[in-house]
Amino acid sequence: MADFFADIPQIRYEGPDSENELAYRFYDKNRVVLGKTMEEHLRFAACFWHTFCWPGSDVFGGGTFNRPWHRGPNDSAAAAEKREVAFDFFQKLDVPFYCFHDVDVMADAANVTEHRRYFAEAVDHLEKLQASSGRKLLWGTANLFSHPRFAAGGATNPDPEVYAFGAMQVRDALEATHRLGGQNYVLWGGREGYETLLNTDMKRELDNFGRFLSLVVEHKHKIGFTGTILIEPKPHEPTKHQYDFDTATVYGFLKRYGLENEVRVNIEANHATLSGHTFEHEIATAGALGIFGSIDANRGDPQNGWDTDQFPNSVEELTLAMVEILRAGGFTTGGFNFDAKVRRQSIDAIDLFHGHVGGIDVVAKGLLNAAALIEDGRLDAAKTERYAGWTGEFGGKIANLDLAGIADLAVEQNIDPQPRSGGQERLENLINRFL
Amino acid sequence: MADFFADIPQIRYEGPDSENELAYRFYDKNRVVLGKTMEEHLRFAACFWHTFCWPGSDVFGGGTFNRPWHRGPNDSAAAAEKREVAFDFFQKLDVPFYCFHDVDVMADAANVTEHRRYFAEAVDHLEKLQASSGRKLLWGTANLFSHPRFAAGGATNPDPEVYAFGAMQVRDALEATHRLGGQNYVLWGGREGYETLLNTDMKRELDNFGRFLSLVVEHKHKIGFTGTILIEPKPHEPTKHQYDFDTATVYGFLKRYGLENEVRVNIEANHATLSGHTFEHEIATAGALGIFGSIDANRGDPQNGWDTDQFPNSVEELTLAMVEILRAGGFTTGGFNFDAKVRRQSIDAIDLFHGHVGGIDVVAKGLLNAAALIEDGRLDAAKTERYAGWTGEFGGKIANLDLAGIADLAVEQNIDPQPRSGGQERLENLINRFL
Amino acid sequence: MADFFADIPQIRYEGPDSENELAYRFYDKNRVVLGKTMEEHLRFAACFWHTFCWPGSDVFGGGTFNRPWHRGPNDSAAAAEKREVAFDFFQKLDVPFYCFHDVDVMADAANVTEHRRYFAEAVDHLEKLQASSGRKLLWGTANLFSHPRFAAGGATNPDPEVYAFGAMQVRDALEATHRLGGQNYVLWGGREGYETLLNTDMKRELDNFGRFLSLVVEHKHKIGFTGTILIEPKPHEPTKHQYDFDTATVYGFLKRYGLENEVRVNIEANHATLSGHTFEHEIATAGALGIFGSIDANRGDPQNGWDTDQFPNSVEELTLAMVEILRAGGFTTGGFNFDAKVRRQSIDAIDLFHGHVGGIDVVAKGLLNAAALIEDGRLDAAKTERYAGWTGEFGGKIANLDLAGIADLAVEQNIDPQPRSGGQERLENLINRFL
Amino acid sequence: MADFFADIPQIRYEGPDSENELAYRFYDKNRVVLGKTMEEHLRFAACFWHTFCWPGSDVFGGGTFNRPWHRGPNDSAAAAEKREVAFDFFQKLDVPFYCFHDVDVMADAANVTEHRRYFAEAVDHLEKLQASSGRKLLWGTANLFSHPRFAAGGATNPDPEVYAFGAMQVRDALEATHRLGGQNYVLWGGREGYETLLNTDMKRELDNFGRFLSLVVEHKHKIGFTGTILIEPKPHEPTKHQYDFDTATVYGFLKRYGLENEVRVNIEANHATLSGHTFEHEIATAGALGIFGSIDANRGDPQNGWDTDQFPNSVEELTLAMVEILRAGGFTTGGFNFDAKVRRQSIDAIDLFHGHVGGIDVVAKGLLNAAALIEDGRLDAAKTERYAGWTGEFGGKIANLDLAGIADLAVEQNIDPQPRSGGQERLENLINRFL
Repeated sequence: MADFFADIPQIRYEGPDSENELAYRFYDKNRVVLGKTMEEHLRFAACFWHTFCWPGSDVFGGGTFNRPWHRGPNDSAAAAEKREVAFDFFQKLDVPFYCFHDVDVMADAANVTEHRRYFAEAVDHLEKLQASSGRKLLWGTANLFSHPRFAAGGATNPDPEVYAFGAMQVRDALEATHRLGGQNYVLWGGREGYETLLNTDMKRELDNFGRFLSLVVEHKHKIGFTGTILIEPKPHEPTKHQYDFDTATVYGFLKRYGLENEVRVNIEANHATLSGHTFEHEIATAGALGIFGSIDANRGDPQNGWDTDQFPNSVEELTLAMVEILRAGGFTTGGFNFDAKVRRQSIDAIDLFHGHVGGIDVVAKGLLNAAALIEDGRLDAAKTERYAGWTGEFGGKIANLDLAGIADLAVEQNIDPQPRSGGQERLENLINRFL
Repeated sequence: MADFFADIPQIRYEGPDSENELAYRFYDKNRVVLGKTMEEHLRFAACFWHTFCWPGSDVFGGGTFNRPWHRGPNDSAAAAEKREVAFDFFQKLDVPFYCFHDVDVMADAANVTEHRRYFAEAVDHLEKLQASSGRKLLWGTANLFSHPRFAAGGATNPDPEVYAFGAMQVRDALEATHRLGGQNYVLWGGREGYETLLNTDMKRELDNFGRFLSLVVEHKHKIGFTGTILIEPKPHEPTKHQYDFDTATVYGFLKRYGLENEVRVNIEANHATLSGHTFEHEIATAGALGIFGSIDANRGDPQNGWDTDQFPNSVEELTLAMVEILRAGGFTTGGFNFDAKVRRQSIDAIDLFHGHVGGIDVVAKGLLNAAALIEDGRLDAAKTERYAGWTGEFGGKIANLDLAGIADLAVEQNIDPQPRSGGQERLENLINRFL
Repeated sequence: MADFFADIPQIRYEGPDSENELAYRFYDKNRVVLGKTMEEHLRFAACFWHTFCWPGSDVFGGGTFNRPWHRGPNDSAAAAEKREVAFDFFQKLDVPFYCFHDVDVMADAANVTEHRRYFAEAVDHLEKLQASSGRKLLWGTANLFSHPRFAAGGATNPDPEVYAFGAMQVRDALEATHRLGGQNYVLWGGREGYETLLNTDMKRELDNFGRFLSLVVEHKHKIGFTGTILIEPKPHEPTKHQYDFDTATVYGFLKRYGLENEVRVNIEANHATLSGHTFEHEIATAGALGIFGSIDANRGDPQNGWDTDQFPNSVEELTLAMVEILRAGGFTTGGFNFDAKVRRQSIDAIDLFHGHVGGIDVVAKGLLNAAALIEDGRLDAAKTERYAGWTGEFGGKIANLDLAGIADLAVEQNIDPQPRSGGQERLENLINRFL
Repeated sequence: MADFFADIPQIRYEGPDSENELAYRFYDKNRVVLGKTMEEHLRFAACFWHTFCWPGSDVFGGGTFNRPWHRGPNDSAAAAEKREVAFDFFQKLDVPFYCFHDVDVMADAANVTEHRRYFAEAVDHLEKLQASSGRKLLWGTANLFSHPRFAAGGATNPDPEVYAFGAMQVRDALEATHRLGGQNYVLWGGREGYETLLNTDMKRELDNFGRFLSLVVEHKHKIGFTGTILIEPKPHEPTKHQYDFDTATVYGFLKRYGLENEVRVNIEANHATLSGHTFEHEIATAGALGIFGSIDANRGDPQNGWDTDQFPNSVEELTLAMVEILRAGGFTTGGFNFDAKVRRQSIDAIDLFHGHVGGIDVVAKGLLNAAALIEDGRLDAAKTERYAGWTGEFGGKIANLDLAGIADLAVEQNIDPQPRSGGQERLENLINRFL
């Protein structure tokens, strides 16, 4: 069954001049950049859901992809076939990591018992596939949003039984992630939000959500999981409003429940733009607040107001993002997971490779550009110069005065600060030199 | 000079059937609703800036309004004339409160010395006008965004001298607010944000901003000001990104600098919608997080992506907002300030009255509707029923279990929670019964 | 099987004070307003797709509704059951009309032959159901967007065979509409657009689309169908860009292919707002351009950038829309079709009634308000006065001069036109008197 | 006075490796690409308004730029100084063209007589400056939106006197453009739209606007002007809605008034994105409809909902735009005008050069990339192959059949068209090879 990609060759680095459409032109995993190999910097992962579970359906039409494992019910055999094809893909793509939701990798379950049996079956298989393929788990997660029981949320559901069902899934998924050597555990609260305030007790839901997250953190420590717990912000969709709106909102949420040193963010480019921010803004914010964790690589469509989850294809955008990632210290346990899907018309097996190969190369080129920018030093120098006053005499003085003291100083010195150019166009041109 | 509104009669409550376009049909200030008069509930204020300072200009064209006090330079005489006309307006409108920025009420100043002299002159006059008119100050603030020196921000400026200039203004404005019996002091960080990350040290700017706010809170206590310090969130405009993006972001910011019990939010309807939220969402969020303070009443245009600051004219929107305000406990020191401007084509003096009279009545009708909804009880009952499980046996059990305990309970009981209707359409219809 | 709604009583008009949640408070079908009954004015229809075909799924989760006819394959028996339940619904709701896509009402077909057989079977049944229920067909249409074969469009598909398949469906659906006495035939080009310009020949696609529409118009006349051909604009979703972006775009398209006197628009509220317009703007534009046809009633969410298709619940919005509909002359063959779906959590049969009953009453109240506004006359008077110059002496002169003549007149008279207030706030207050 | 830029050297092409921040790295005006020099292809222009008239103000703050010619009233001397500085700039930048609104280049006028006198004075001077500098006029236009008399529009004003005042300005500006050898005449209807439908007679305004444009076209022919009349679409801002929403809307407008062969569009990148389209979409649409004219080069901010008019800095965006421009046949009379402004903080004279030099190089690199893509041929080949069916046997057949004929053919052949991959990811990767 791993023959699904029989026609696709192993993807390798061939350099910028390669005319091979299925080769890396920039992602040279062993190339050392700023002291680490590109593989160590970027920690690429492919995902199960968009690439192996989604059938190519959208709100206005059915699945177009016609994958063999989708032809009948999603039973144990179909799930096993999907897992094998996926690992074949991870190997051919030569990404070191993969990611999954519990329901992505297992047979459809009708109840708690089946859920646990089928998931355990899947985890056993994944463990073997990891061993045989040399691939590792970047992160695992539990899907608390697709089944109808989660229509009103998981941890924020008005029904405590749904909360408990979710707790069962998260416990098992967290333990499986631990067993599989996963480096992180992610929570995306797809339906942790509301459709209408008219039927919503926001305070209770936030408190339930905060407690749920606290329990997860507590359990992580109990079982000795040393990976990072990550929350993935998104402003809305499917819900009208999602509680984890953006990085700044998640930060406040973590502070409220005393979790800011335990949990970090998994930032997705398309979620960033849906929330009214640039991708690099979200990374810079996480860096400034000390909660930068991992990346879900994709892009949105600035003209379309929903999560299009397209493959990243802008070196310009990824260069700016990589600058902020490097400034935030780079990844520790995190990495670049492709939470991206080929377009619904891209129905061929090879399209999955075009999407990922292109995306990987765009990110890799972004890293090379960002490293060159940082090594060049002019960008940093401009910033240092702009804030120089704060390390000067006047800046030093006001650091030790209260409001009245500073105000009095302004009066005494009769200060008349003059605006200085921010030099934005010059810096934008400078960036363009490195693309 | 107070003759500017000579043709406009005193505005009074005349009841729903009045055909007088310049009368209140719903705002009956002495009417008791849910135990308080409407005046006590709503605490209306009019503002200086849009109503008496703005000349009717926009980015594509000059001022259209042709006010007498705008015909020459904004010197002490012009500023005094403006203050008198404004208080005549506040009285004719019969709103109990007004609001101002320092530069709104004073002559143009070229330097620190002039700033302090002209502002002091203005405050003396305001004190007299308050006494003679019986109007009170809802809040004061300092403008740290209009003068070119603030092009790169006030408290977040790369230049510490600008920070100090801002500190001088804020100290004086806070003390003036205290002296004038102001009930709150507001900070809107119009340029506390960035134009491009390329020249921005976000962490430093956030820390400078946090320290500034801490100094303001400290000074408030030092001078014995018992009013509330308020931050007004806005996502962007004029900056590309503003640090006080929305209520949830401000909450995280306050938590970061230990100010969550000292500072509350002043929520503006149009800022809410610009940040991707409904007006009522922002109020509900502030209520849930315990930082609800005051309201800047206006509305945006859902098709136009900038701050249109139109007068509120949707009873539907204000009813939902008033429900959340009442649920958040109503105002303590806050109130409804009209941060709204008549359209640039509405050039007549009477248009200022049409805008405010209509806006006041829309808010007042919203209060009456919200009170009726709450007294009716069906909306609350639906919510209570929806979350009933959390006060039941199962809910009680899981409140005392850890993640594994809850998961084990789910397994033991082999729970199979069934989705229940959220009844959204029914509740939306219910609201419509009260409009 | 029509027992699905056994617990739901017949919906009737009971007046504004009725406490019955399943009664009309404003829709009194026999009440005469501006010379016609409300039934004649509003011509309400319910639709098959959202109400009887959609299972409650979204992009992030499966169906929640659990309707009996969805439990097995969509074969002839299931389709028949659905049709019967639907007509029971139409009767209980007492709407005079209904609407359908071909695939909504028939069994799933694997090929051309099956499509024609199952569709014919459905049409026979619909004809009987219409007769027994007294319900009529507002419009029919063919679905050229859900099946994978239409992934790249129907009439704009790169593959002429898909175009031909679509032509087969449209021919049959148009003839069925004619046979069933349908008053209109609609084309919504859900995938008539593009995902990326990189693989799109826009000119060819537009020309193919224009020819397709011309053929439909020609066939309509050939078979003697006297109903109206309607195009439904939408800016995007599912496609990145849809050719029928908005009413103004459709007008240009019709002019390009000489169809502006043959085809009109079916305006949907949510499509209007997605395209950056208000609902009433789209109606006013269609009225000004002479192509107003029919309405798909629903609403979007101003904070969510996709088609939420919620039930209309704003009397304010519907009043403004009804003013424009009445100004455009009201409906001839068109009507108000509820292209609206209950929320995914609204899983009970009764929720379908709450949605429709509330929506019908909101539209009905909008009509009553709009009629009162028009009878009042002040709104029209303000407009007449604003443009009075054009019927005066100066306006008359320039109507007969060329550019140089008008310019010379301006010079000779040394004109100095003064701005006059647009009175927007006053007019907005006036509207609020009628809500 | 032309000494304002004394410190700035002449800008020259120095090649990709130049480290000179004020040199062109890609814009080599004499380099031949696809048979024409880059200068002939791109026809760059700089503009008066953003670069020499705007003082650095925004809605929330005053001017920051402190230009010498802004220090006193805008009288004849100040205007002359501005014109000289501007031409010095055009020469140093070495762009062949410039653009202006009447009021940009003249002293402030209080009435018709002054307007004509000061404008004539300016045109005389411009004629001399053109001769001495060798710069040419890409287009002229009249400003019918900044003066308060135009608050309710120019050609769509409710007051016919305002219409006449506008006609006077346009007549003079068109004749001046003719005299100055301008290659186009542009109309941007900044306030040709509405603030509220409540006071708007849309049909009358559209008809007045259509007649105005017809008169302009008639006058153009009368005076022998052989340049192109251009309309610049924008969806809104300053108005709530602008009639020239986008290219497709303008096309319909031109068709309505029979002007589609007389008038073309001047497409601005930021206006495109504000209207919900990509820049390249608007160009492709104009190309498909045969009305492509000229370009206003800039960019918007995808997160900010107003016209930011930033300098273009994305080679990726400009490459896609240039592909569409070349496919539309390239410019005839049009060109690339920089309708872009440096940021309000970019207060130094040199920032004007950084903005333009960077923008010119980004456009130039876009041209080089687009030419390489076209010469490569793979992109075109993929498109040709995708639509091959239309030139095949089946496509040929249906070109000659009516709807029933095509439908019958589908039935007879029992066609079963299979979806084919659109190859989007592959093509996106292909583009990235050329950046």
